[in-house]
Formats: sequence, C-alpha cells, structure tokens
Amino acid sequence: MHRLENMLSQIVPVGSSRADEAQAHLDSLTKPPGSLGVLEDLARRVVMITDVVEPTVENKVIFTLAADHGVAKSGVSAFPPEVTPQMVMNFLQGGAAINVLAKEAGARVVVADMGVAADLDGRAGLIDKKVAYGTQNMTDGAAMTEDEAVRSLLAGVELFEAELERGVDLVGVGEMGIGNTTAAAAITAVMTGRPPAEVTGRGTGVDAAGLARKIDAIETALSVNAPHSDDAMGVLAKVGGFEVGGMAGVMLAAAVHRVPVILDGFIATAAALIAQGLAPAVVDYLIAGHRSVEVGHMAALEKLGLSPLLELSLRLGEGTGAALAMPMVAAAVAIYNEMATFGEAGVSGEGIS
Amino acid sequence: MHRLENMLSQIVPVGSSRADEAQAHLDSLTKPPGSLGVLEDLARRVVMITDVVEPTVENKVIFTLAADHGVAKSGVSAFPPEVTPQMVMNFLQGGAAINVLAKEAGARVVVADMGVAADLDGRAGLIDKKVAYGTQNMTDGAAMTEDEAVRSLLAGVELFEAELERGVDLVGVGEMGIGNTTAAAAITAVMTGRPPAEVTGRGTGVDAAGLARKIDAIETALSVNAPHSDDAMGVLAKVGGFEVGGMAGVMLAAAVHRVPVILDGFIATAAALIAQGLAPAVVDYLIAGHRSVEVGHMAALEKLGLSPLLELSLRLGEGTGAALAMPMVAAAVAIYNEMATFGEAGVSGEGIS
Repeated sequence: MHRLENMLSQIVPVGSSRADEAQAHLDSLTKPPGSLGVLEDLARRVVMITDVVEPTVENKVIFTLAADHGVAKSGVSAFPPEVTPQMVMNFLQGGAAINVLAKEAGARVVVADMGVAADLDGRAGLIDKKVAYGTQNMTDGAAMTEDEAVRSLLAGVELFEAELERGVDLVGVGEMGIGNTTAAAAITAVMTGRPPAEVTGRGTGVDAAGLARKIDAIETALSVNAPHSDDAMGVLAKVGGFEVGGMAGVMLAAAVHRVPVILDGFIATAAALIAQGLAPAVVDYLIAGHRSVEVGHMAALEKLGLSPLLELSLRLGEGTGAALAMPMVAAAVAIYNEMATFGEAGVSGEGIS
Repeated sequence: MHRLENMLSQIVPVGSSRADEAQAHLDSLTKPPGSLGVLEDLARRVVMITDVVEPTVENKVIFTLAADHGVAKSGVSAFPPEVTPQMVMNFLQGGAAINVLAKEAGARVVVADMGVAADLDGRAGLIDKKVAYGTQNMTDGAAMTEDEAVRSLLAGVELFEAELERGVDLVGVGEMGIGNTTAAAAITAVMTGRPPAEVTGRGTGVDAAGLARKIDAIETALSVNAPHSDDAMGVLAKVGGFEVGGMAGVMLAAAVHRVPVILDGFIATAAALIAQGLAPAVVDYLIAGHRSVEVGHMAALEKLGLSPLLELSLRLGEGTGAALAMPMVAAAVAIYNEMATFGEAGVSGEGIS
C-alpha cells in the first residue's frame, strides 16, 4: 500500500506553463488560427502532458486486460463466461478487432490475464497478472477483497513500467471480460451519483429482460455492499473488476511518467473514475478516445471533464476505440512538429484571426 | 460535352447485390454483431462501391485543387488573394497541413492549379489545369462561361484518370482558394433552396462585418445570375469556382471507376452538390469525412444524404478533413479483411444479437 500511496503523491496537474508557448507555435503555422479545431486542442494537451518542446508519439501501446466477473452468473450478458478465455486466445492469435485496429494504428498490444476464470498460464504472448479466477458475484457481497483491489492496481502499474523500458509515448487502455459492463455501470452509478437505471446499457447486446436483470443486479450490489464515492478503492473492491483495477493502475503509472492515455469506452472510463478518485490530477493525462453507445458513458466522461474525440457508435471494448483515436493524436502531434510557419513558407496573413 | 455526357451515363447506383454478403461476413467476425458501429457501415459501403469480395485501400490519393475567385474583390475573406499562390507553393514544398496529414494517412497529394490568378506554370510537382486566372466576380455576372465550367469538370476527370494509372483505391478531395467559402455558400443556397444567410459562415475567420459582406455578395450574385438548382452546370458557371468544378469532376470519374471518395469540408461538399445535380447516383460513392464548423455544411450534407464520420471543429480545407478520415476507412476495410470469424477462432456465441 505504501508503494501505491507513494505513486499517487507523484501525480500532479499538468500545469499551464507550456500552454502559451504551444498556442503561440500553433498560431504561427500556415493555417487560419484555430482552423484545425480539436486537433489543435489535442496538440496543446500533449505538449502540456509530456512537458517537452517537441513531443513524439512514436511508441504506441494498447493494454488489453482480461478478467472474469462473478456477476455474470446473474445473467447480465448475452455471451457465456467461457468467451473471456476464448477471446484472450483470439487476441494472442491476432484475430480480434483490437489486433487489426492496433496494427492499423501502428501500436503494439499488451494482453494480460488480470483474473480470467480459466487456466491460461504459459500461453505465448500472454502476461500473467492473475489476481484470482474471476471476481465474486457483487450481488452476494464484495467482488474482491481490498487486498485484491490493491494488487490489481499495482499489476497495472507493473504492466506500464515493463513497457516503459521498450518505449511508450502514447497509451490506450481496453479490456475483455464477460459481465464487465455491469461492473462499469455499478462504478459509474456510485462515482457520478446517478441511479443504476440511468447508466446501465445493453453491453454486448442483451435484450430488454437482460437489461432489467443488469439493473436489478447493480441495485442489489449497491444495497448489499454500500460503496461510497469518497472511497474509490472500496468501490473497486465492492463492485469492480480486476481488469478495471489494472486499467486504473496503467493510467496512474502513465500520469507519473507524463505519458498521455487514451481511454477506450465505458469500462475503461469507469476505470478512470476509480483512478480519479485515487488521484484527481490523473484526468489531466487522459484523452477520451470515443463516445460509446453505452448509455452511462457520457455521465462518466462528464464526471472526468473529458470530451470524446470520435463518435462511431462503438460498443466492443478491447481498446478498439482507443486504437481508432490514436491516428488523431498522432496527426495532432505531426501538425505541431512538422507544419511550416508563415515566415518559413512566405505566406501572408500571420496574426489574422 | 459529349465526353462528359457519356461519362455521366456510366454512373450507376452501387446496387445492393453485395450488401447481404458483406453483412453476413461482418456478423461472422469475432465481435458482438454491429458492435463496431459506423466502422461496419463503412466496410459494407466500401464493398458495395468497389463491388469486390475483398476491397483494398492501399493506394490513397488526395486531390488538392487551387483556384482564385473574383468575388474576393468584394471583401469576403480574412486573407488577401495572394495567399492562394503562396499556399500552392507551400503545398509543393510540403509545409502545409494537408502535406502533414496526408503523410500520416499514407496518402499522396496531387496539387493542381485549376485557375489561380498568378503564373505558376513550370513549378515542380504542380499539375497545370488552369482554366483562367481566377473567376469573374459573381456579383457582376457569371463567375465563368459554361465552356469554362465544362473544362473545369473535365480537368478533374483527367486528374483522376492520370492517377488511375499509378493506382487509386481511395480518394480525398480538398481545395485552396481565397474567397471560395463564398462560392460554396452560394452553391449550397441554390442547391438546397435555403436563404444565403442560413448557409454562409465565417470561412477562414472574417468578422461580423465580413460575414455581412459575404451574405450581401451572395444575395447580389443570386439576383444578378438567377442560378437554378435544376441546372447544376449553370450553377457551377454562375457562382462556382474552377476548383469546385475540378473536385466535382474527380468525384464523377471516381464513381465511374467505382472508387470511394472522401469529401473534405464545406467547399468539397458544395462540389458534391454540383456532381449530384449532374449525376444523382454519384452520392453512392461519396463518404463525408467530417462535419465542418461552417454553418452551411450540414445543409449540404443533408441534401446529399450523408452523415459525417468525424466532428473535429475543422475549418481549414485543403483536404485535411478527408485525410483525417482516411485511417477510419482503412480501419473499416482492415476489419473486414483481417478479423477472424467465430469459427476460425473457436469463440462461442456466433449469431447472438
């Protein structure tokens, strides 16, 4: 726990010292001021996060963290729990959406078993960070112990730090875990103070009866466990998941090392709510990759104070929305580093606004 | 004119013969059906446009077409007209936003002088398709003759066909021309039937007085020239621009050859309205890259029946929004071609919806 507390104390707001410098440079480039809109905001944010004159996003890494959820036993998913290990194998074989989209984005995928309810150790390419064989069913009691919650966070920190040695300039976080939109909705309900029915959606595609079971399971879990938004670690333990803790750990470690993190969808954003509860300044290092169709996603993003880059009606997870956003961040940084200034190009009109 | 009419007759609706096949393949991939949202729609559209089993978007080309506008004399732009040739030189030297973003997207940029009001012939890398030294001021009479309008369209066709020999799988269209948001707003007003004040924005950044001058210039031009939406060629001649005609020509030629075209912003979309007027089925081959901040852009997209892929508050032009959308289209095609099916990966749950 000392290790975690020590790390949390190192996460500081990005500060505005480079904001004016970045804006002045953007305004000197051969385009009407502000005409690249969100791309200019992104470039400025990356400069502030990285705190360097010329940021790079060459080394891109997507963390796809897998775990199972006891609450899947309550009939909250359209898919059976054995899909979690099956999809992990698909990630390792390169056949999943995240493999394809990461390759397109020029990112490597780090696949870790955070708590899959099947034996996967020794599989080539899989990082073993298993905390347990899935969480307990949150409708019966806490999903995990506080010790397990801390271990899942620290496992995420370790995953990030291991990649740091290979080079990490830009991170994406995503997940796989049958039942985890239920955990994410429970976390979102607690951390935003909204009723479960407002933040619970159809996940991978449950029908109306399945949606009713999800909402009922979350209401029961909140009643049984009484999680409180002031205690983010307790929320993670009571209604979270091991992959949620892992993603939060990646975010916290990335913030310490001033590396921008692109959130995938609803579950990654729920993990960000946990990270924000532990270290509020972590949000300065986060970029919302996209707006998911999951109904609770916007509530979570609003709590973080983030606007999504893309809106593509995605609801897959794995890190796919983060991978799709990576070219936008890379484009913003390339604009910042590579465009000619009015002076260099001999173009009239600098300073017109 | 025969050549143009012959070409227009070859533009046919994409047809739905491959739609079911494409959908069935998408539903067999290891993800919940429909969970990649817009990406799946895009993949299906590209299959239908290209009419092949396994489409490719390897060869990406952005056409950045430049021309000047007589209406610039009416004080409708924040920038002076000499910026048009200066920016053309910037494109040739690789310092502009479109150069940077095309490089990120893996696209080559074709820069053509469609009618810049300066001598640029002989500049390395510039394709000379100059119709005239800028259009006439539309507030005094027609911007160009009907012959010039046809020549600008055919120049666009020739630009596309020349690239076809080098390989073209995916096209983006963009432009540079001081004053051309005024031409685009005039076209949009005529083709959508909306009043000029509803579809005229601040372009590269004019102030309130400049915006009033733009609206006034367009109202005068519509009164003086009486363009009618039933006569798209007449609209192009009366209030258009040479780069607008060129972009429409690229779109028409691409549709003949079943190559998808990504529209940039407001001016490219106005060109699409001209192309639609000449051959309604051309819209089947168009993808709206992004939603511009220009107020008339959505009206034009609605008339085309297109939804924008990105919403990044861009208002630059050059093809930048098309370049930013290219990775999305490439990602959609990669998903279609490269993901494993449920059967291949041994994942449970195919057919769950």
